[in-house]
Amino acid sequence: MLQTGCAIIAFPAHARHPSMDKPDYQAILEQIHRDIAPWRTAGRVADYIPELAKVPAERFGMAIVALDGTVYAVGDARERFSIQSISKLFACTLAFQLLGDALWDRVGREPSGNAFNSLVQLETERGKPRNPFINAGALVVTDVLCRRFVGAETALVQFVRRLTGAADLDYDLRVASSELQHAARNRAMAHFMASFGNLQMPPETVIEAYCRQCAIEMNCVELATAALFLANGGVAPVSGEHILDASSAKRLSALMLTCGTYDAAGDFVYRVGLPAKSGVGGGILAVLPGEMAVCVWSPGLDANGNSLAGVKSLEWLTTRTGQSIF
Amino acid sequence: MLQTGCAIIAFPAHARHPSMDKPDYQAILEQIHRDIAPWRTAGRVADYIPELAKVPAERFGMAIVALDGTVYAVGDARERFSIQSISKLFACTLAFQLLGDALWDRVGREPSGNAFNSLVQLETERGKPRNPFINAGALVVTDVLCRRFVGAETALVQFVRRLTGAADLDYDLRVASSELQHAARNRAMAHFMASFGNLQMPPETVIEAYCRQCAIEMNCVELATAALFLANGGVAPVSGEHILDASSAKRLSALMLTCGTYDAAGDFVYRVGLPAKSGVGGGILAVLPGEMAVCVWSPGLDANGNSLAGVKSLEWLTTRTGQSIF
Amino acid sequence: MLQTGCAIIAFPAHARHPSMDKPDYQAILEQIHRDIAPWRTAGRVADYIPELAKVPAERFGMAIVALDGTVYAVGDARERFSIQSISKLFACTLAFQLLGDALWDRVGREPSGNAFNSLVQLETERGKPRNPFINAGALVVTDVLCRRFVGAETALVQFVRRLTGAADLDYDLRVASSELQHAARNRAMAHFMASFGNLQMPPETVIEAYCRQCAIEMNCVELATAALFLANGGVAPVSGEHILDASSAKRLSALMLTCGTYDAAGDFVYRVGLPAKSGVGGGILAVLPGEMAVCVWSPGLDANGNSLAGVKSLEWLTTRTGQSIF
Amino acid sequence: MLQTGCAIIAFPAHARHPSMDKPDYQAILEQIHRDIAPWRTAGRVADYIPELAKVPAERFGMAIVALDGTVYAVGDARERFSIQSISKLFACTLAFQLLGDALWDRVGREPSGNAFNSLVQLETERGKPRNPFINAGALVVTDVLCRRFVGAETALVQFVRRLTGAADLDYDLRVASSELQHAARNRAMAHFMASFGNLQMPPETVIEAYCRQCAIEMNCVELATAALFLANGGVAPVSGEHILDASSAKRLSALMLTCGTYDAAGDFVYRVGLPAKSGVGGGILAVLPGEMAVCVWSPGLDANGNSLAGVKSLEWLTTRTGQSIF
Repeated sequence: MLQTGCAIIAFPAHARHPSMDKPDYQAILEQIHRDIAPWRTAGRVADYIPELAKVPAERFGMAIVALDGTVYAVGDARERFSIQSISKLFACTLAFQLLGDALWDRVGREPSGNAFNSLVQLETERGKPRNPFINAGALVVTDVLCRRFVGAETALVQFVRRLTGAADLDYDLRVASSELQHAARNRAMAHFMASFGNLQMPPETVIEAYCRQCAIEMNCVELATAALFLANGGVAPVSGEHILDASSAKRLSALMLTCGTYDAAGDFVYRVGLPAKSGVGGGILAVLPGEMAVCVWSPGLDANGNSLAGVKSLEWLTTRTGQSIF
Repeated sequence: MLQTGCAIIAFPAHARHPSMDKPDYQAILEQIHRDIAPWRTAGRVADYIPELAKVPAERFGMAIVALDGTVYAVGDARERFSIQSISKLFACTLAFQLLGDALWDRVGREPSGNAFNSLVQLETERGKPRNPFINAGALVVTDVLCRRFVGAETALVQFVRRLTGAADLDYDLRVASSELQHAARNRAMAHFMASFGNLQMPPETVIEAYCRQCAIEMNCVELATAALFLANGGVAPVSGEHILDASSAKRLSALMLTCGTYDAAGDFVYRVGLPAKSGVGGGILAVLPGEMAVCVWSPGLDANGNSLAGVKSLEWLTTRTGQSIF
Repeated sequence: MLQTGCAIIAFPAHARHPSMDKPDYQAILEQIHRDIAPWRTAGRVADYIPELAKVPAERFGMAIVALDGTVYAVGDARERFSIQSISKLFACTLAFQLLGDALWDRVGREPSGNAFNSLVQLETERGKPRNPFINAGALVVTDVLCRRFVGAETALVQFVRRLTGAADLDYDLRVASSELQHAARNRAMAHFMASFGNLQMPPETVIEAYCRQCAIEMNCVELATAALFLANGGVAPVSGEHILDASSAKRLSALMLTCGTYDAAGDFVYRVGLPAKSGVGGGILAVLPGEMAVCVWSPGLDANGNSLAGVKSLEWLTTRTGQSIF
Repeated sequence: MLQTGCAIIAFPAHARHPSMDKPDYQAILEQIHRDIAPWRTAGRVADYIPELAKVPAERFGMAIVALDGTVYAVGDARERFSIQSISKLFACTLAFQLLGDALWDRVGREPSGNAFNSLVQLETERGKPRNPFINAGALVVTDVLCRRFVGAETALVQFVRRLTGAADLDYDLRVASSELQHAARNRAMAHFMASFGNLQMPPETVIEAYCRQCAIEMNCVELATAALFLANGGVAPVSGEHILDASSAKRLSALMLTCGTYDAAGDFVYRVGLPAKSGVGGGILAVLPGEMAVCVWSPGLDANGNSLAGVKSLEWLTTRTGQSIF
């Protein structure tokens, strides 16, 4: 029988799956905004540092920024909050720009399957963190930036300013100081990786830069805008800057998908179906390649450290629009 | 400031990412077929059962079946092989049809982060396997089928016959017997889950059905055809049968993405960017939603148990076509 | 300075630690019998098999058998109970007789540090159990006996008859059957070790023999008598039989000390200071080398699976007599 | 049948195990000194800090100090070396004096079953180290001393001076500095325990004191003399000082037995049969209660970090004298 070459299987006409029309994002966001009310206080606001615990639990904002520049927003979508671990996405992008695939010699690309600050795998795997979106991996990424830039956190702030066009973006010094006082676990990880030779700068230097980058404040519209380069083949629409080549942008999205939501990645992908990065400040930033970026903010967290109402809202968004990467 | 409502960010015109034209699949497959030659013998053929070890290492086949019924094929794309763990996808689909989301009470949806036959997590997590695509999870899925059907393996064979239209599909009895004689690890897992109350049928019944379903033989074209329902909103194009609703089909694809390639899922998603399920027989079956399914076969495996040339070929396919879910 | 040779350090006369007189064992046992009353119902009787759950929780017996043949006993010291894991001591002695140090190629000599039926270490350590006193290790020991004797459990019964002189000792068939019906976890371990090649007989054969040996019934006096060979340089005082050479007897005691009380070995040695083996039937058998053996029975267990009142009684015994190995 | 009360079992006369005469320690030590020659260079000198790597591998000393003050010595028994982890025994004694059983709220008493600097169990067990003889546990012990004494290492030096009567004992500043520069792993553990609230002083303070106490230098005779209080009911023979009550001294010996030789405790107890504490400087200090203390020094280590020739020598000592705690 012919092995190589084209052939046709005659499928019955009714088998074709109808494609969806462009959804009415604004209407859907407003509907989500109404429906989410009972979920907004169901989670638990992060309280491991006092500054984060002060944020009112009932805040909720959500914004979609489409590749054509249209912004759809509801609620507190323009109120800034502490982006926390979402900063790992921007730091990783910068480090990936600097080192390319050599970055993966120092940090892996696999889901962790354990709590986000676990030292267990770090020991088994000899100081090489599972991926750049868990704390250990983010410390390696920050180490890369600290080695390249005198002020790693300043370089990062400037980067998100360029991605958004918002010149007044900055980190909050009180939040950063508060983090620094509660960084024992991260310090343990930094020294531990140093013991395996996987940290090039002094641990305390890396810890300080890391605490500052976590304390950057942005709002939903700014975050969605900043992530658009991932949906746009690596080019930031605001500035036209080529952040990454198209293939690298796709790969970074892939990494977000498998590793971006702590150890709930499997559940998140199942329910939401978008590459995303979350933070304990209550923000979740997600991307629909070729289409848009979306950011939701609600400070109450679920057991995995992801925004409880945020995950729910994104699940409704992809279910109601029929849009996801699958 | 206005929080809710639409707005426009003025993006410079040059920032838009150009969409790709429809790729010439046949040309790209033929190019891959040529380029892959040196990789075909780089992997290691599975030898844990004698029947699998007999397959010549240099075999290579690859087939794309588009949603319009066009088949693109190269090499040994129409030679049947032992589908092994790819059967987990079809078994899971059947069990998901039967139980819906109740299935997830008995098996999780998270990547395992450990070797595919690990008992460690099974102990920590009290007999609930991480996901349906590792052996432990597949045994639970088979237990579901054994409870519903007198012959679980027969039900599964009939299912893949309907999905492909190939009435002569069957499992190979010698391979199944050989598996049964080397199933000590799977027996350990079955008894272990039974000790936690997560197996309803006798362990040996489940083991036998499992060994037979792994021994089903199909070729690349048949496998790609059988998976099309996942790319087609849950409807099998061959028969028009509604296998799953659109949302469930997406979710099953999501699960394949995070859990379908053993503990290399992160690396696979990074390199290939498609939901996929691999088997130690050397087959990998992947799906591009809304577009096509693709299957590659090359018996030599990498350290994670995935076809070495198969992963490489799929990476080239998504890179050269610019097509992936990201 | 002189390095080799004798010298004297002048210690002040008052520094010598006074040795204790021979304690009045019977008086101390009777005192313990009185004091233990409130502890007798504090533990939880093993209920994983119905036959064990039937034993009244308030039973308590304790017996010391000195090397000169004197028996000191209180309470239910002559009522037989299910020796359960204490049988591991006798099975290990037999296997050690058969194989000598070659036994340690198949089973280790280190404390487990995990729950007594854990499969985790078994996986990490490629099917070689940590020691012969956890279930996995005892299954390997039973495998050794099954290979050597047609009826491993009969050989073991005959061995304890010789050690005690009690010709009517036997296992309880109902308990053995009950164990066999609840042996899923042990079956999992047997198949798992078989998958690593560390089981030579069929798993089910080993499991049956193991369940029967656990169901042997003995009383405190019989158990203490049976263990005297360990306190007596390897010679059983009842029969004069040389069970082990003096060095091997010491080594088996050493193994009991570090591994005999599940994962509470450190705590037990700290509190009691005697080599001992416990069972979920509520018995604990301990040895004071050169002096005596002691057995206590109280069915209520602590969180580690050791008799709660039993551990307490032994702690009082060594504290009140000032006798221990330290 | 009578349950409570004395009885006699008639044992045949030949069954009694003959007690050994007092062994000729000096002759046995000299024989060991001769026989050990080929083993002295079989191990691997610790090289994780440069100062330790400088010690000649072929050094070998051994000393027994009996409770009557007789010193038996061979080889380099009066040459001082870095006691390293043997200091954990003295530090633990001091902390146990200070806190009594309250010490065990902060550090456990179970063997670790893992490598001596593992963070895995520390994470699972929420910052409470397994025992005071692994590094993590010793850091907690040092934290106790740092809180009580302005200079914890000075208090410890003064303690060992009192135990030995050697007024010139001290730590080596170069070794301490060298340790401090290679303390990344210990720093990681200190910060990690701090993150669980199980460190009361600043991590760096504890680390410095810890590095200094490890750098104390003593010889075999001094170490054996210092440990005599454990063999002597808690009273130090040199000074008559009551270090611990008799029961606590026994318990500390028990702890040494189960936890004193890293994760080879089971093997060590099996082969040697004495409570002991080893250090990576090549020293092993052991105790025979009621009789003597013995110290051996040979810098080459086995895979577990214990002196290779040291363990062998102690095994020969207890085998040839017939003396052990069993």
